Amino acid sequence: MERTVYLNGEYVAESKAHISIFDRGFLFADAVYEVTAVLNGKLIDNAGHLARLERSCKELGLKLPVTGEELTGIQKALIEKNNLVEGGIYLQLTRGDEGDRDFSYSEDIKPTLVLFTQSRSLIDSPKKDTGIRVISIDDIRWRRRDIKTTQLLPACLAKHMAHAANADDVWLIENGLVTEGGSSNAYIVTDDNTIVTRPLSNDILHGITRASLMKLADDFDFKIEERHFTIEEAYAAKEAFISSATTFVWPVVAIDDKPIGNGKPGEVALKLREVYINTALEMAE
Amino acid sequence: MERTVYLNGEYVAESKAHISIFDRGFLFADAVYEVTAVLNGKLIDNAGHLARLERSCKELGLKLPVTGEELTGIQKALIEKNNLVEGGIYLQLTRGDEGDRDFSYSEDIKPTLVLFTQSRSLIDSPKKDTGIRVISIDDIRWRRRDIKTTQLLPACLAKHMAHAANADDVWLIENGLVTEGGSSNAYIVTDDNTIVTRPLSNDILHGITRASLMKLADDFDFKIEERHFTIEEAYAAKEAFISSATTFVWPVVAIDDKPIGNGKPGEVALKLREVYINTALEMAE
Repeated sequence: MERTVYLNGEYVAESKAHISIFDRGFLFADAVYEVTAVLNGKLIDNAGHLARLERSCKELGLKLPVTGEELTGIQKALIEKNNLVEGGIYLQLTRGDEGDRDFSYSEDIKPTLVLFTQSRSLIDSPKKDTGIRVISIDDIRWRRRDIKTTQLLPACLAKHMAHAANADDVWLIENGLVTEGGSSNAYIVTDDNTIVTRPLSNDILHGITRASLMKLADDFDFKIEERHFTIEEAYAAKEAFISSATTFVWPVVAIDDKPIGNGKPGEVALKLREVYINTALEMAE
Repeated sequence: MERTVYLNGEYVAESKAHISIFDRGFLFADAVYEVTAVLNGKLIDNAGHLARLERSCKELGLKLPVTGEELTGIQKALIEKNNLVEGGIYLQLTRGDEGDRDFSYSEDIKPTLVLFTQSRSLIDSPKKDTGIRVISIDDIRWRRRDIKTTQLLPACLAKHMAHAANADDVWLIENGLVTEGGSSNAYIVTDDNTIVTRPLSNDILHGITRASLMKLADDFDFKIEERHFTIEEAYAAKEAFISSATTFVWPVVAIDDKPIGNGKPGEVALKLREVYINTALEMAE
């Protein structure tokens, strides 16, 4: 059964969803994206994702061809058309296509907007029980990691490298300090149960799930501290975990083959995951 | 009159040249490219471009679906089908498309290969007479600029910024040192007529035109020195210029609104341009 996807105002079968080879998303990675999780057929943390999309667009001078409300309408239509119960909705906006290749673009270029669903088990992901194993590698990405662009080749290469090393993902290191996971924010838990994560800057993505976790930590009396931490501090941490839109919270049980804590998913991570999912289900649109 | 373009083994009208929204070139910028100049209907420095393409592929684990000889055959067929006399041939290879979005990819994924022509006056470009004006901005690109990937958003933004400042292009600066132009290598000429350009490393693209100029400089007794230089040294230089596949050599007459030398195209740059074009025409395939 083919998915129905959204492409520039139309709902089409996925096998018919084509763009021109001249689309700037294809030629220049001149494009931004968002992924919103879906649970019980409802959108999770979507307001945050749309707000970040708007910010990405503003930073790059990209124009959204629809309002936030219309976007939510498209997302809900795709959920319905594809009977999506659990998974995610991917959204990509490119600067558009002017029928040839030129670094320059005109002010009235018409953007390309694509959305599609992905059905996937999120709550019962086996990774919540096993945790994930990561390897640390150099963070070689560009300097505006706060903008969610499709320049994702480093993430593809990093994950490929992790899999080749029998790991699940990577943690990225710059000047000895952890920046992020391969496509997630990174956290450690210290001996006194303080959650530590890197402060927001242009060096990392401003995770929507991260923002929600910060708020929950406050509401549920987790101690949380935004500061830089080294990979050595992570090796010696009581726990480690990642967060992202579709993993929510996944425990990290090993970094560079060194077990973290007792080598099993940590209590703080699992508790935070539980609290996040419960709240997300309540708040889902 | 529509162009005929090449897409995965077929020659199609440009308006029919479509790729799937799931192509990894579109979703992840998981793709490399090359541009070969065409003069008198013949390929310029093409062996160098194909060798660099092969290197880019090797660095990223991308598989070329055709041999270098077959690629040249496609390039020549496109020149003929489009009656291309002067301009360029763009070539893009993506990791391919597995019908969904996933950072991971299988080993037997089938790549996407696209080539198209662009007709443009290269030898009689007005820029050779006027020179170009550049502004200097921070180099925010990723750390593997030696690989010619389609992660070109920083170049698009940089050129847009230059145009907004009534300049033609940018020079990129890292730690006070010039790395490259917006899509070119950067050079200055010192008072004793020595050409200075940054040494090759992962910090800059290994320009094919740059390599040819280095050889010509040797053959025609230009003095050339590969070393780092600051933007201040560039301001005070006798001349400045850029090189790339389709500009060949363009004089830089102003950097950050400061005239370089007498503010006119420099003699060394123009002589080098002339020698390059003459040799290119002789060597064209």
